[in-house]
Amino acid sequence: MKTEVKTILEKVSSGELSVDEALTKLKSEPYKDLGFAKVDLHRETVQGYPEVIYGAGKTAGQMRSIVSEMLKSGCERILITRLDGEQCEILKQSFELDYCPLSRTAVIGSKPEPDGIGKIVVATGGTSDIPVAEEAAVTAEVFGNEVTRLYDVGVSGLHRLLSHKEEIMNASVIVAVAGMEGALASVIGGLADCPVIAVPTSVGYGASFGGLSALLSMLNSCAGGVSVVNIDNGFGAGYLAGMINHMEAKK
Amino acid sequence: MKTEVKTILEKVSSGELSVDEALTKLKSEPYKDLGFAKVDLHRETVQGYPEVIYGAGKTAGQMRSIVSEMLKSGCERILITRLDGEQCEILKQSFELDYCPLSRTAVIGSKPEPDGIGKIVVATGGTSDIPVAEEAAVTAEVFGNEVTRLYDVGVSGLHRLLSHKEEIMNASVIVAVAGMEGALASVIGGLADCPVIAVPTSVGYGASFGGLSALLSMLNSCAGGVSVVNIDNGFGAGYLAGMINHMEAKK
Amino acid sequence: MKTEVKTILEKVSSGELSVDEALTKLKSEPYKDLGFAKVDLHRETVQGYPEVIYGAGKTAGQMRSIVSEMLKSGCERILITRLDGEQCEILKQSFELDYCPLSRTAVIGSKPEPDGIGKIVVATGGTSDIPVAEEAAVTAEVFGNEVTRLYDVGVSGLHRLLSHKEEIMNASVIVAVAGMEGALASVIGGLADCPVIAVPTSVGYGASFGGLSALLSMLNSCAGGVSVVNIDNGFGAGYLAGMINHMEAKK
Amino acid sequence: MKTEVKTILEKVSSGELSVDEALTKLKSEPYKDLGFAKVDLHRETVQGYPEVIYGAGKTAGQMRSIVSEMLKSGCERILITRLDGEQCEILKQSFELDYCPLSRTAVIGSKPEPDGIGKIVVATGGTSDIPVAEEAAVTAEVFGNEVTRLYDVGVSGLHRLLSHKEEIMNASVIVAVAGMEGALASVIGGLADCPVIAVPTSVGYGASFGGLSALLSMLNSCAGGVSVVNIDNGFGAGYLAGMINHMEAKK
Amino acid sequence: MKTEVKTILEKVSSGELSVDEALTKLKSEPYKDLGFAKVDLHRETVQGYPEVIYGAGKTAGQMRSIVSEMLKSGCERILITRLDGEQCEILKQSFELDYCPLSRTAVIGSKPEPDGIGKIVVATGGTSDIPVAEEAAVTAEVFGNEVTRLYDVGVSGLHRLLSHKEEIMNASVIVAVAGMEGALASVIGGLADCPVIAVPTSVGYGASFGGLSALLSMLNSCAGGVSVVNIDNGFGAGYLAGMINHMEAKK
Amino acid sequence: MKTEVKTILEKVSSGELSVDEALTKLKSEPYKDLGFAKVDLHRETVQGYPEVIYGAGKTAGQMRSIVSEMLKSGCERILITRLDGEQCEILKQSFELDYCPLSRTAVIGSKPEPDGIGKIVVATGGTSDIPVAEEAAVTAEVFGNEVTRLYDVGVSGLHRLLSHKEEIMNASVIVAVAGMEGALASVIGGLADCPVIAVPTSVGYGASFGGLSALLSMLNSCAGGVSVVNIDNGFGAGYLAGMINHMEAKK
Amino acid sequence: MKTEVKTILEKVSSGELSVDEALTKLKSEPYKDLGFAKVDLHRETVQGYPEVIYGAGKTAGQMRSIVSEMLKSGCERILITRLDGEQCEILKQSFELDYCPLSRTAVIGSKPEPDGIGKIVVATGGTSDIPVAEEAAVTAEVFGNEVTRLYDVGVSGLHRLLSHKEEIMNASVIVAVAGMEGALASVIGGLADCPVIAVPTSVGYGASFGGLSALLSMLNSCAGGVSVVNIDNGFGAGYLAGMINHMEAKK
Amino acid sequence: MKTEVKTILEKVSSGELSVDEALTKLKSEPYKDLGFAKVDLHRETVQGYPEVIYGAGKTAGQMRSIVSEMLKSGCERILITRLDGEQCEILKQSFELDYCPLSRTAVIGSKPEPDGIGKIVVATGGTSDIPVAEEAAVTAEVFGNEVTRLYDVGVSGLHRLLSHKEEIMNASVIVAVAGMEGALASVIGGLADCPVIAVPTSVGYGASFGGLSALLSMLNSCAGGVSVVNIDNGFGAGYLAGMINHMEAKK
Repeated sequence: MKTEVKTILEKVSSGELSVDEALTKLKSEPYKDLGFAKVDLHRETVQGYPEVIYGAGKTAGQMRSIVSEMLKSGCERILITRLDGEQCEILKQSFELDYCPLSRTAVIGSKPEPDGIGKIVVATGGTSDIPVAEEAAVTAEVFGNEVTRLYDVGVSGLHRLLSHKEEIMNASVIVAVAGMEGALASVIGGLADCPVIAVPTSVGYGASFGGLSALLSMLNSCAGGVSVVNIDNGFGAGYLAGMINHMEAKK
Repeated sequence: MKTEVKTILEKVSSGELSVDEALTKLKSEPYKDLGFAKVDLHRETVQGYPEVIYGAGKTAGQMRSIVSEMLKSGCERILITRLDGEQCEILKQSFELDYCPLSRTAVIGSKPEPDGIGKIVVATGGTSDIPVAEEAAVTAEVFGNEVTRLYDVGVSGLHRLLSHKEEIMNASVIVAVAGMEGALASVIGGLADCPVIAVPTSVGYGASFGGLSALLSMLNSCAGGVSVVNIDNGFGAGYLAGMINHMEAKK
Repeated sequence: MKTEVKTILEKVSSGELSVDEALTKLKSEPYKDLGFAKVDLHRETVQGYPEVIYGAGKTAGQMRSIVSEMLKSGCERILITRLDGEQCEILKQSFELDYCPLSRTAVIGSKPEPDGIGKIVVATGGTSDIPVAEEAAVTAEVFGNEVTRLYDVGVSGLHRLLSHKEEIMNASVIVAVAGMEGALASVIGGLADCPVIAVPTSVGYGASFGGLSALLSMLNSCAGGVSVVNIDNGFGAGYLAGMINHMEAKK
Repeated sequence: MKTEVKTILEKVSSGELSVDEALTKLKSEPYKDLGFAKVDLHRETVQGYPEVIYGAGKTAGQMRSIVSEMLKSGCERILITRLDGEQCEILKQSFELDYCPLSRTAVIGSKPEPDGIGKIVVATGGTSDIPVAEEAAVTAEVFGNEVTRLYDVGVSGLHRLLSHKEEIMNASVIVAVAGMEGALASVIGGLADCPVIAVPTSVGYGASFGGLSALLSMLNSCAGGVSVVNIDNGFGAGYLAGMINHMEAKK
Repeated sequence: MKTEVKTILEKVSSGELSVDEALTKLKSEPYKDLGFAKVDLHRETVQGYPEVIYGAGKTAGQMRSIVSEMLKSGCERILITRLDGEQCEILKQSFELDYCPLSRTAVIGSKPEPDGIGKIVVATGGTSDIPVAEEAAVTAEVFGNEVTRLYDVGVSGLHRLLSHKEEIMNASVIVAVAGMEGALASVIGGLADCPVIAVPTSVGYGASFGGLSALLSMLNSCAGGVSVVNIDNGFGAGYLAGMINHMEAKK
Repeated sequence: MKTEVKTILEKVSSGELSVDEALTKLKSEPYKDLGFAKVDLHRETVQGYPEVIYGAGKTAGQMRSIVSEMLKSGCERILITRLDGEQCEILKQSFELDYCPLSRTAVIGSKPEPDGIGKIVVATGGTSDIPVAEEAAVTAEVFGNEVTRLYDVGVSGLHRLLSHKEEIMNASVIVAVAGMEGALASVIGGLADCPVIAVPTSVGYGASFGGLSALLSMLNSCAGGVSVVNIDNGFGAGYLAGMINHMEAKK
Repeated sequence: MKTEVKTILEKVSSGELSVDEALTKLKSEPYKDLGFAKVDLHRETVQGYPEVIYGAGKTAGQMRSIVSEMLKSGCERILITRLDGEQCEILKQSFELDYCPLSRTAVIGSKPEPDGIGKIVVATGGTSDIPVAEEAAVTAEVFGNEVTRLYDVGVSGLHRLLSHKEEIMNASVIVAVAGMEGALASVIGGLADCPVIAVPTSVGYGASFGGLSALLSMLNSCAGGVSVVNIDNGFGAGYLAGMINHMEAKK
Repeated sequence: MKTEVKTILEKVSSGELSVDEALTKLKSEPYKDLGFAKVDLHRETVQGYPEVIYGAGKTAGQMRSIVSEMLKSGCERILITRLDGEQCEILKQSFELDYCPLSRTAVIGSKPEPDGIGKIVVATGGTSDIPVAEEAAVTAEVFGNEVTRLYDVGVSGLHRLLSHKEEIMNASVIVAVAGMEGALASVIGGLADCPVIAVPTSVGYGASFGGLSALLSMLNSCAGGVSVVNIDNGFGAGYLAGMINHMEAKK
């Protein structure tokens, strides 16, 4: 959307657009209003850039309308997150999609060739953090990144983590996914010299308080280069990791 | 106090004590009532066992009375914790004491020779956790333990911790003191095969919430053998560490 | 793992291992990577030492793979915690195991003869704390400890607790399990002269806030020798109790 | 105020009061409006019943006005709570008052002869809970109750509490004042068979969170007959204890 | 239990009991140990005094054992609280009981004639607070009190409350049950001159946080004579109300 | 109810009512007591003013009684909120009602013609906030307001919001409904110059903590004219919006 | 600012402004950038409309610059909130201002004649809530409203509140200011039929938790027409009250 | 440190180092142990890379020792954060440093020429967030980045933010600093297409709860590319921003 406002102003200046047309354009352009949702359609961006639908709290019917609208506008690749198996079954009747029940993500269209600066490492503290990690990994892949998965490398068995020191030190960006005490982010942050995106998970019991313990632990990390996203927000971490991993392409 | 009740009952049985005398004894024996405080006096325990006074919330006058009472009853060694410099100055007029301003502890009498199973390691994540760590270390020493101090070995610089792997793996008990993300306890717990007592500190800012972050992190540690005491409770950790380090002497 | 790093370095020095082999060894040795989990295999430890699997958040299939791997590597005794009855049924088709539905623990192999310093007392405040207490007790037994159970001795009926004063005063370590106000740990801590491991439970209603009330109460205990593990963490308490109860064997 | 509304209505009926006079009366009667405060004046209650002023957040000037107004209206006995020493000095220039710096209470007029059902016991867990306990004790005394003080009888030294079992079992009402783990209320509640009013105090450090730990612990007490007032609310506890201790006089 | 200790000591003195018999007696007397529960049996109390069983977290089998034991020891009246309909059906096969599904209480034996000082008023803010209120009311009735119910008199419709001013002002004790903002306790506390026991309920949504809002509101009540029990603790309130309503009988 | 008290007093004065009749009247007038509920009946208010029933926590039977009583007393329009589909089915057997499953509201009688000052805008941050928004919109409509719905205009896609700038700037009152970060209220508050009623929703995951995040965010809004109602309280917002939108009619 | 964007677009269309000038204008127009602050200058609004400066966190120097800039741009009336006495002394050297130390507000220029729909009532629960209430009252007055102050009418003395029923029922808007249990808003909301803006205050101790108790209580109010602003936010309440009280003037 | 372990292993293999020398080296190499602190010395990194000292909780003496050690080891540029003016005065006696009292940062050595991918924008919601923002900005500059400051562009005056749309859309990385409702991060995240690092500040009052409100709001941001650091952690944000802004240089 960057240059759109300027373009519209120039068209007004040159007489291509009247003031009222300009106002109308500013209001109606960048999305399709479906009543229950306003669907952003990045028509002018590079072809192949994926659109994303957050599935939670939307009916299968609502999602079908949104997907249809996106495909109609020329979108070639769609990522749906937080998609129940049940909703998925209904969508499958209308669209061809690649569903991962572990991460509850679905992809319409194929994943692109990786074209980032380097590799993104996605690491988890335990086995039960894997669903959130997979959401991050799939998201990163859909946005054109190569992903290395290091699962079950929690800090209480440091040798398991240290045996992957090389992957960690060669990563472009690291997504550290952990519940319980969330110490993984700090330890990885101390070993790596790249940005570390910490994802607390709601995995745990007792005083983990639904991910609060891991969240606080990660926010208080003393290691440089660590930042945090919301509890269980694998998508946000994967998306940001991909954005950072494409920094050099920007200018 | 273990056998006292039985002893009293036996004396009643043998006629040495009347019922009323027994009741009186049960009520008046084990402490001296100063009105504002009831001072436990372990007269029958092994000579040299230290008494402890928690200094916070007590006036210098109150503490002087308690110390006097303890000395009068034969106590040879007293540990005072949470003692302000000011209170200390006043106490010094009446008693000879060894004050450590860093840990705010004072010792009356000399520290005993260490006689525990092995060495107690006291480790901190950062420089500002040292006061709490010193409270633990001094307490352990007063209770007859040899202490190894490993300060500023936080997990964000893992090499500093790992270079002390030997001390950690040879320790009898470890006290892990850390604020902020509190990950030290988990990492040490994963390296060591002895009990680890975790002490969260109120050191930190922002979402450390006065030690809450470290506390939750430590409680959620996935490493075996880790337990937690109250925020900033160096004394409790040192005392428990000493107790564990003297287990073999028990039977 | 203590001496492994040194051993590997010596072999490099003597030419038995090349540098690359050493690096490979450091990375691949101490666990088996199953993709979703990295299974620690303590091959060099004393025969009979139990391995532990935390069942929550793992599928029956994942657990079967882990157990198989452990048995293959020579492990003779496995403790599985947080195992649902349903998962248990599936595992039973492949392995012989001893399941306790109350504590949701399963044991593969037999419990060893107790060889600790003394007895471990496991006490609960009420009847509904028993599942957590049993997790602690079974864990301690699997790790070679003799356990005395004192259930429903909450402080609101002090005579029930006091009538077991002897067991409490003769214990080597005490695990105090309580929900609601969690006062049991403080009272036992005041009576006993051994380490007390407090386990808050999520039992209760209203302002018990899922165990928070008991947790805070136990952390604030004024009794010496008390430390706390996570809410409902019976395993952690039983494991630590066993570790302390074997202190004398260490050196 | 019980019968006032009915009285006014009767006077309207009999013509003694017009409707407008009645409305005016209903609005202006029961208190004196000083602008910044509306002072209740219980003119029709039994002579000698004390009025109470909550000192915190009021200037010495405001308090002087309130006291004057009360004395003018015939009040013979006034209790001021939460009174700083400084404010007290200023008030002393105008009124004769008996100030207790420990509990920060001041009494104008003499304390009455106790005339309750029995004795009120005020107990504390430690020495630093005494200020709150004294606020309760002084309040109870000003309202005509005999008070027995049992200070520093916390549950970590159970023998100190048990040696006062008789006072506890003979009490009419008990006020249990404690910070930290707040277990005192439960233990006393289990021993006594009279109402126990629990007062959490903000005394403590770390995870006592300004009295929250003791508050939750007391609310979750499993002992019958225990209820709780606000953190540090010695006045509320003393007042309620006195009310209960005068139950028999009611009908 | 008051005089039991003294009695035993006297018997030791007179030779009726040996020391070992005395110790045995002190440990085994006052309850029956069922393994999973220790059942208090008040054999020496006035006949007809009810025993209470807290049903939550107990199986129907466990409850049956406890009830049997109580009946065997001569108990004539039992109150069971937090009893599910399902558990109730099972118990009904063995015992005759009067079940109230609203309050989930069951009574074995008949309710006694009220013999308290006066009437207990149980008031609720709304319709959905009634289950908790009924638990309080039934409890009070089982313990020999007359109860007046004032339901749905919340402060947002003050006229509904004020129209019952007379019941409120004539009450001996008031139990104020409310969720949401919990203001009922304060307003009633301001109108009444008897003890008010406030019961926050978990009724509500959003920022009522499971009763926390009402709990804090009630704890902060500025009205004199108000104290608070745990969220949804109708039993505790009814029991305490009954205790206070029988004060005059005590001496 | 404003003038009722005065009217009653005048009748007492003129002899139309005796004192006892007046007292009776004051107690029984303004509501119908159904035992479990006290139903306010605004008999003297303008015809057509709707009565409201909060459905949550009431049985279908209770609601039927309340509706019947309202209709009997002449009420022409009833709004029921928080009504489950199941309860609705039962009510439909007795009454004709217009049910909206999205907002879970039912209306008995027709919606009135809008007669407010201007239009009320109801805006949501996302699609999943719509149920709460509809509760607000339906409520406002039932109380005689015209409502403009702006759904899915969250601040992370500012252009969607800005394209509706005109509706926002012309609104009489705005209801801003949002979960997650709740920034919608601040941004709208900065654009509009009319009162903004912010409704946090419990929509979200992780650190949204059931609406707490949005609630705090909205309370801390720096924009002028913003106030907040309870989490998910669409009714409260719609009712208040309608009240403000009818301000000019008041005098 | 409503029409500014349209105006600029029209000038671009008519050639009065080039595209670049338009862009510049859009960026520089509506405020003056002082580096540390961007001062909004409502040049086109009705003369006499007050500007507001939030004093907290600004140095006296910064405030002087902002005031100067405002006066220079033609502003005739400025309200400064949260102004320390010290800062005030410095400002007084440069400007003539009317300072109220109680509410810490300063007014430059005179207060306008009230021209709202009706009267705004500002009520407080206690004496110590008055500073926040005065901030609300002064703000409302500066924005052209007549204010009635009802102070110290907390619900624990209901007669004091009820004696002002007439002011409450005749108010156009009510600001209810209370700490502790915050019940004032609910009770007033139940009596009044106008919008009630609730302001929790941080006044209180113990479990009032800096205003949290009052905040939650007010958010959970069951009375219709009640909304809430931030703790201690007298300004926000006064501003919103004034906005509502000028509703009729809008169209 | 990346290649150090491998290098050491190779030297062992080639005989240059004995096993014991290797172990010693691994332990003593990478830092200087000062007892109270272990100072990392990146001797092998590119000359000019700055070292960082966190000043809080360190005495001036401790800091002097650390600085000396760093300078001695060849470090040319040191950033000290959280440095009080007082501590600064003492350090100035020994070193030449450039102190910024606003951000409480000191720089020893000169700032380097910017060599990042693009510009870093540091934006604040209000004037009082500037100290935290300056800590971020100075940090970024010391690490070789060009910084654009946009202060006081909070979302309640959206035009101020939108007038800087170009800087925002051209930024390489954005640091969004805000207290209170913290909505700035979401709005900027919606406008920008680069990584946004959100820094909640403890600025605010009432329900901002020391930055908790802004923290939660930022964590819940629905905008893509937003991650969060600890409350007031300007350094962490500036450091991470610089790391991301140097991504292209990495490979």
